[in-house]
Amino acid sequence: MPLFDTVVSGGLVVTAGDRVHCDIGIRGGKVVALGHELEGREMIDATGKLVLPGGVDSHVHIAQPSGNGIVMADDFETGTRSAAFGGTTTVMPFCLQEKDVPLRETLRAYHAKAEGQSYVDVSFHLIINQPNEQLLGQDLPALVEDGYTSFKIFMTYDDLKLNDRQILDVMSVARETGALVMVHAENYDAIRFMTEELEKAGKTAPRYHATSRPKVVEREATHRAISLAELVDVPVMIVHVSNREAMEQIRWAQQRGLRVFGETCTQYLVLTEDDLDGLGMEGAKYVCSPPPRDVESQEACWEGLRSGVFSVFSSDHCPYRYDDEQGKLNPRGRSSFRWVPNGIPGIGARLPILFSEGVSKGRMSLEQFVAVTAANPAKTYGLYPRKGTIAVGSDADIVVWDPTKRVVLRHEMLQDGADYTPYEGAELTGWPTLTLVRGTKVVENGELVGRKDFGAYLPRNRSPFASPASRVDL
Amino acid sequence: MPLFDTVVSGGLVVTAGDRVHCDIGIRGGKVVALGHELEGREMIDATGKLVLPGGVDSHVHIAQPSGNGIVMADDFETGTRSAAFGGTTTVMPFCLQEKDVPLRETLRAYHAKAEGQSYVDVSFHLIINQPNEQLLGQDLPALVEDGYTSFKIFMTYDDLKLNDRQILDVMSVARETGALVMVHAENYDAIRFMTEELEKAGKTAPRYHATSRPKVVEREATHRAISLAELVDVPVMIVHVSNREAMEQIRWAQQRGLRVFGETCTQYLVLTEDDLDGLGMEGAKYVCSPPPRDVESQEACWEGLRSGVFSVFSSDHCPYRYDDEQGKLNPRGRSSFRWVPNGIPGIGARLPILFSEGVSKGRMSLEQFVAVTAANPAKTYGLYPRKGTIAVGSDADIVVWDPTKRVVLRHEMLQDGADYTPYEGAELTGWPTLTLVRGTKVVENGELVGRKDFGAYLPRNRSPFASPASRVDL
Amino acid sequence: MPLFDTVVSGGLVVTAGDRVHCDIGIRGGKVVALGHELEGREMIDATGKLVLPGGVDSHVHIAQPSGNGIVMADDFETGTRSAAFGGTTTVMPFCLQEKDVPLRETLRAYHAKAEGQSYVDVSFHLIINQPNEQLLGQDLPALVEDGYTSFKIFMTYDDLKLNDRQILDVMSVARETGALVMVHAENYDAIRFMTEELEKAGKTAPRYHATSRPKVVEREATHRAISLAELVDVPVMIVHVSNREAMEQIRWAQQRGLRVFGETCTQYLVLTEDDLDGLGMEGAKYVCSPPPRDVESQEACWEGLRSGVFSVFSSDHCPYRYDDEQGKLNPRGRSSFRWVPNGIPGIGARLPILFSEGVSKGRMSLEQFVAVTAANPAKTYGLYPRKGTIAVGSDADIVVWDPTKRVVLRHEMLQDGADYTPYEGAELTGWPTLTLVRGTKVVENGELVGRKDFGAYLPRNRSPFASPASRVDL
Amino acid sequence: MPLFDTVVSGGLVVTAGDRVHCDIGIRGGKVVALGHELEGREMIDATGKLVLPGGVDSHVHIAQPSGNGIVMADDFETGTRSAAFGGTTTVMPFCLQEKDVPLRETLRAYHAKAEGQSYVDVSFHLIINQPNEQLLGQDLPALVEDGYTSFKIFMTYDDLKLNDRQILDVMSVARETGALVMVHAENYDAIRFMTEELEKAGKTAPRYHATSRPKVVEREATHRAISLAELVDVPVMIVHVSNREAMEQIRWAQQRGLRVFGETCTQYLVLTEDDLDGLGMEGAKYVCSPPPRDVESQEACWEGLRSGVFSVFSSDHCPYRYDDEQGKLNPRGRSSFRWVPNGIPGIGARLPILFSEGVSKGRMSLEQFVAVTAANPAKTYGLYPRKGTIAVGSDADIVVWDPTKRVVLRHEMLQDGADYTPYEGAELTGWPTLTLVRGTKVVENGELVGRKDFGAYLPRNRSPFASPASRVDL
Repeated sequence: MPLFDTVVSGGLVVTAGDRVHCDIGIRGGKVVALGHELEGREMIDATGKLVLPGGVDSHVHIAQPSGNGIVMADDFETGTRSAAFGGTTTVMPFCLQEKDVPLRETLRAYHAKAEGQSYVDVSFHLIINQPNEQLLGQDLPALVEDGYTSFKIFMTYDDLKLNDRQILDVMSVARETGALVMVHAENYDAIRFMTEELEKAGKTAPRYHATSRPKVVEREATHRAISLAELVDVPVMIVHVSNREAMEQIRWAQQRGLRVFGETCTQYLVLTEDDLDGLGMEGAKYVCSPPPRDVESQEACWEGLRSGVFSVFSSDHCPYRYDDEQGKLNPRGRSSFRWVPNGIPGIGARLPILFSEGVSKGRMSLEQFVAVTAANPAKTYGLYPRKGTIAVGSDADIVVWDPTKRVVLRHEMLQDGADYTPYEGAELTGWPTLTLVRGTKVVENGELVGRKDFGAYLPRNRSPFASPASRVDL
Repeated sequence: MPLFDTVVSGGLVVTAGDRVHCDIGIRGGKVVALGHELEGREMIDATGKLVLPGGVDSHVHIAQPSGNGIVMADDFETGTRSAAFGGTTTVMPFCLQEKDVPLRETLRAYHAKAEGQSYVDVSFHLIINQPNEQLLGQDLPALVEDGYTSFKIFMTYDDLKLNDRQILDVMSVARETGALVMVHAENYDAIRFMTEELEKAGKTAPRYHATSRPKVVEREATHRAISLAELVDVPVMIVHVSNREAMEQIRWAQQRGLRVFGETCTQYLVLTEDDLDGLGMEGAKYVCSPPPRDVESQEACWEGLRSGVFSVFSSDHCPYRYDDEQGKLNPRGRSSFRWVPNGIPGIGARLPILFSEGVSKGRMSLEQFVAVTAANPAKTYGLYPRKGTIAVGSDADIVVWDPTKRVVLRHEMLQDGADYTPYEGAELTGWPTLTLVRGTKVVENGELVGRKDFGAYLPRNRSPFASPASRVDL
Repeated sequence: MPLFDTVVSGGLVVTAGDRVHCDIGIRGGKVVALGHELEGREMIDATGKLVLPGGVDSHVHIAQPSGNGIVMADDFETGTRSAAFGGTTTVMPFCLQEKDVPLRETLRAYHAKAEGQSYVDVSFHLIINQPNEQLLGQDLPALVEDGYTSFKIFMTYDDLKLNDRQILDVMSVARETGALVMVHAENYDAIRFMTEELEKAGKTAPRYHATSRPKVVEREATHRAISLAELVDVPVMIVHVSNREAMEQIRWAQQRGLRVFGETCTQYLVLTEDDLDGLGMEGAKYVCSPPPRDVESQEACWEGLRSGVFSVFSSDHCPYRYDDEQGKLNPRGRSSFRWVPNGIPGIGARLPILFSEGVSKGRMSLEQFVAVTAANPAKTYGLYPRKGTIAVGSDADIVVWDPTKRVVLRHEMLQDGADYTPYEGAELTGWPTLTLVRGTKVVENGELVGRKDFGAYLPRNRSPFASPASRVDL
Repeated sequence: MPLFDTVVSGGLVVTAGDRVHCDIGIRGGKVVALGHELEGREMIDATGKLVLPGGVDSHVHIAQPSGNGIVMADDFETGTRSAAFGGTTTVMPFCLQEKDVPLRETLRAYHAKAEGQSYVDVSFHLIINQPNEQLLGQDLPALVEDGYTSFKIFMTYDDLKLNDRQILDVMSVARETGALVMVHAENYDAIRFMTEELEKAGKTAPRYHATSRPKVVEREATHRAISLAELVDVPVMIVHVSNREAMEQIRWAQQRGLRVFGETCTQYLVLTEDDLDGLGMEGAKYVCSPPPRDVESQEACWEGLRSGVFSVFSSDHCPYRYDDEQGKLNPRGRSSFRWVPNGIPGIGARLPILFSEGVSKGRMSLEQFVAVTAANPAKTYGLYPRKGTIAVGSDADIVVWDPTKRVVLRHEMLQDGADYTPYEGAELTGWPTLTLVRGTKVVENGELVGRKDFGAYLPRNRSPFASPASRVDL
């Protein structure tokens, strides 16, 4: 066996299925061998360390237009840089359909933002907010063929929400094309109703953002999304689930044999509604949707991750600067929570927090950690086995973790474009010390060593979960 | 990298976590490398085939004393031979405590039966039917230390049943020693009551075996076993679950966060109560406990396997010859179902039937197949990573499957010691064409090529599920 | 105790709570005494008979505008006549808001239709289909004060459906005024989607009416209605529930302590989807919404009635003539199920069918029969204790039943304005032989003896279930 | 209508089904008329008061042998006196089978204790602790014929517990005879196991009584009792349910259509485990089984009463004096909780506490109060319509309540034979001011005016719930 480009040796290699002490032989950016005593031109000693597949963050917003003079805090350079610092090697942001512009054209522009500006690999979901005949009948089927195999739809937000009929139409196209539908499940009318009631009562501080979208608003939309998918007979992914009520809807559907999948995020494991209750506008830092809930909801989300109700764990990274008129503190936002941009940064903090709170505290196994942060997102969205595992033939996206390293989280460690992290000061055990993307070092010991033109765009296969049943496929 | 002893090349290697096209390099009976273009002294071409970890059958009865002049149909030679023919490379029979004999002594005798008589590897569970002070306080803790890390207890059968207090005592020892408790959950008193009522009514044909132990009898004992384990705070494995009612008890416990595991078996997927209703004594061929149920129960068991309620799939191989006065047709058995020995052969048929009905018919994925037949039993009972996967460092227990081969199942293919198979005539798609144990061929293309002194005894680690939470363990 | 106007003697008097052999003394249209050996100017001998409170049918449509040239088969004369023949003494039809007409004005016109034309007593619910500011802020609060204490809203039908925001607005008014909201729960968009798909496929026969609104469509809307009511914190009545899925939503809400009530109807107990599958247009006779389902759904509805998930049993009488261009066979209806008017006659058949299938067949007790057909509707809608029981002070609305009388149901027995009954030929055990409204005979032994100007309009109290908790109220 | 013996006038008469302002005419100890302006030789003015059926306490222990030198605090004189003070007019104590004595003989002796010593009416359940052939085959069928129509069995307590087979045998007799089986559901072996563990650890104070029988012990036995009853197909009443886990087992059974009934008691609504944690032996005052739990369990019990999971509310009165060597402070009891007699007094406090905490605080309606305290116990145990309601023909067991009277509960108000009440100091709203048994005053304004030879023995009909379905019974 000839010399490898690179060998990662001596670590405990963990995938979703196995944990094995072995060396990893890398050539041409791919894992080409697993064994002992492999030799490479470059030797990386992982003795005493964990060697995990690079994280796949399948739910992030980067450089997405936000309207009203609001600007996202991250472009692809800063967003993918932060990903790499946090052990994530593939990100999947959303391309948002612009009203009355062909989606293909918007996509082209979005590709342009990413190209040459990404430290890690990138693939795009499509947000559908104007499902007209041209899009449904022509554009989407062609785009799915081209590797854009997932659609996201919103049940809330003024400029994004689809009504039930539009949802059914998009789901029908998904059924025909084999695309996977992701749903942001909150009831628009109910939120609007609550918001107006609160504003009438003069309750406009950031904390009322949470009041305006209680659990029932999320649970209802979750049940509705599941029902519409059941009617059309398509699989559906309910994203960013925040609490037990919504989770139980998903579990109930799964137990009835429906192909319903669930995702939860960092904020629902470690933040609560109380975080929105800071002095002055401080609470705006934590405004995201659904809002963080309470301690019991955190427990429910952990349980959902452990039991498989949630197969995917993402950041829902959606960064706005706090102390910024184009961000959280825009003038209208000061007048009412309604105008505080929804979203928090988290692309870099996702893995360290889950590792520390989950693995180090005994709430989940290493294999479960790899499954929900890398293997499952890759499988769900058609990137597996290229991404999500360490196996012969996979991309050599590899992260070396020091499971004993203790870190107090500071925003500057995360290297994103925001001016804060909602997890400031968190005391963590376990930290990624080396990030390889396709065999190439991107971050090492907290130093950026990669290049921003290294990240590649990844067209995707159809989700295997979008076909009727798994098959023997040689 | 020097030449390997053996290389399995060109197949699709599937584990519980991954499916990868690669070669497997074997040396000294172990998998030492995964890669491409590996070279070995012996080359096995698996192109177009599946390459799976050898099956681990964690619930079999071999050469176990049955009392009353009844004799099991298999000794270790025939039992492990049949296992190898069916793609199983590790079997875990039970050593049954003999009344008033030190368990260590009985174990010695049982080891003697297996030694030099096994084609595949073997490990033993301990059946506890006389939990006295010596056993609980002295013998069991020592035996756990020695690698007998699982206890089986019965809630029914005249000579086996423990009362609740005895169950609690055994569970307490399990808690202290880190052993895992397996439970046969049926209510003795209720079965006895039903049996007497049926006999009084002259209903003694084999079919009344099923009537005498309805679902509620299994569900009750399942709930009780879970409750007793909850009280003592130990994990528990409910074996051979046959229907939805019992399954839902396990699911409910799992959702409450209890460490309750479930197993189902071949017979509950493809047989029904109607199979006991043959002419004359024909139904005796299908007498096992719990009895097969109905089509809805089969669906429930499939759902349980898919959703993880059942993490283990076994044969509960417990063979008696049919046309034999020491077997099913013993004189007393002809007088009442009560005396028909409980148990059916299945060690060889387990994997082909699950493959065909599960994988080939789209009810489960290949990864799920590997998980429930090999990886999970190995993990559950402390044999992983030596057994249950194909990874660097694991034993080279490897089975090559032809997923397209069509077979009509005949008893003679199974090579066990019984004179029938309950699955006679089953039309199967998919069949194991080569069985390697620790790198050595045991069965190839339906021919026995192994030696009966090749199988090794495997002492086991404690179950990782018997400790409070998974840990980072470098 | 002086002479009574009328005495009903010798029967078994059954209410929701008690069954007692006693006489009933009536004076001034009211029950004024219960005792033995009472004497009245008129003596009604009920020996060997059951004496029950007159039925309260809280969900009927009479003389309601249907649009598109369709005309309902019943005016108040025929509708209330049929009610009386079937043992019902109070009916509660809907006054449908006309677009851009003050509701008060429409109500006036609707009162005019009923006045002098009713054989039994009458009260009105309000259908809200245009919840504008004037209505919500001014008209509804005033109307509730005047005794119109229940609002019905629709989640489907082109001219009736409210969106979620409108539902929340109506519920808010209900909360402020103490009115009770009734919901027709089916998802409009989903039905529309299915209808268009079916029409595209040329599937336009009446049977496809059922296909176009499967259970999931009802379940989803039920969950949504419950959720919106939970958000606003108002009680809600889900009307005409047809199957287990929707029922379980209601049960789940009740178990969480929400004030959610359920109603089911005759058609969901004895008809199935197959009834829509007649030759030619015959199936149109059974077109109603939700459609009848299947035998399992019937069982679920019985269970719901027995267990209290459904507290009210109504007819949802909504009659259209079958062989009529203004009815089921209107020209457009022949072209697609979409245009077949939704609704079936049932005001007269309701009680005899429930009595025969429920009481006579042992599915429910007499007390349960009285509860769901009379006491509960009266209590739920603020007519109790005037209606719904036989107690001192109540209106003497009394029906004498012969529980042993065998009847083959023929449409002509029902005396309504339609030209068929969906229950033609039903073999019944038990039949009402005398109907008294406020002490006056209206129907006796199948003869009409009442006057059509006898029925009175009943303003109603607020529902006691619409206040936070029941109170000691002396 | 001639003059009545007694008339109760002007109150709000409330039954399980109705609330009506009317007078009650009483003659010969029976209610013979309901009406207005009735006249009687004796007029009782209940204006501004509630007039309710006398309470039926279907679960009390009076003068029952306790073994080990322990003596119950109440004989029939004091027990029935306290009942009358608390508004209860019928009590149903248990006759405990004595080992090796014919049950008929023990019954005779028990009758002798009650005869001439009871202020209110009395009926007996039979406790079966030695189900031998004579009893099962001969004695019980005859006793059921004679009006002893309910059997109680215990799943715990040294001298009382039946094993599963014995339970099945008793249930079989119940099935054949139409008797109703009541079950004390706690797992003996588990309690014994816990008790020994606690004693080994030196944890012997009264508070450990609760530790020794945690919820799971009750839940398990509840599931088992339900399962055994399901097997035999008999109805079963689970008595004194203390928490949600056990309640949910009952609810689940009810939803599956099984005839499973539930009872809860005063102590589970207002006491908690913390009450056992007093200084010294003070906690012994609260030792009963199952033990009181926690605030969440109280909520569950309220929910169970409201939703009908619990149809019966009793005291489980089982009085022992506290400061007494024959009671709680017996010498062995001081050495371990194991020897503290299990049981607390409550026959007198039952209704005032439920009224105050339930009705006055808005947790239940007046009708629900009557249902669970009088109508349902009377119906369940075959005493209806003689007891449990105020209707023509019923016994005139009537209690006048002042719903506004405020009382601080003191033991001396309860007039029982104990030396304390566990509810000392409770602040109550609502109190019974007059108790009539069969038309005769027994307690008036806190004064005893009845005679201890007035109470009658009541043989009972079979429970209507023990027959397959309710019937029209003229």
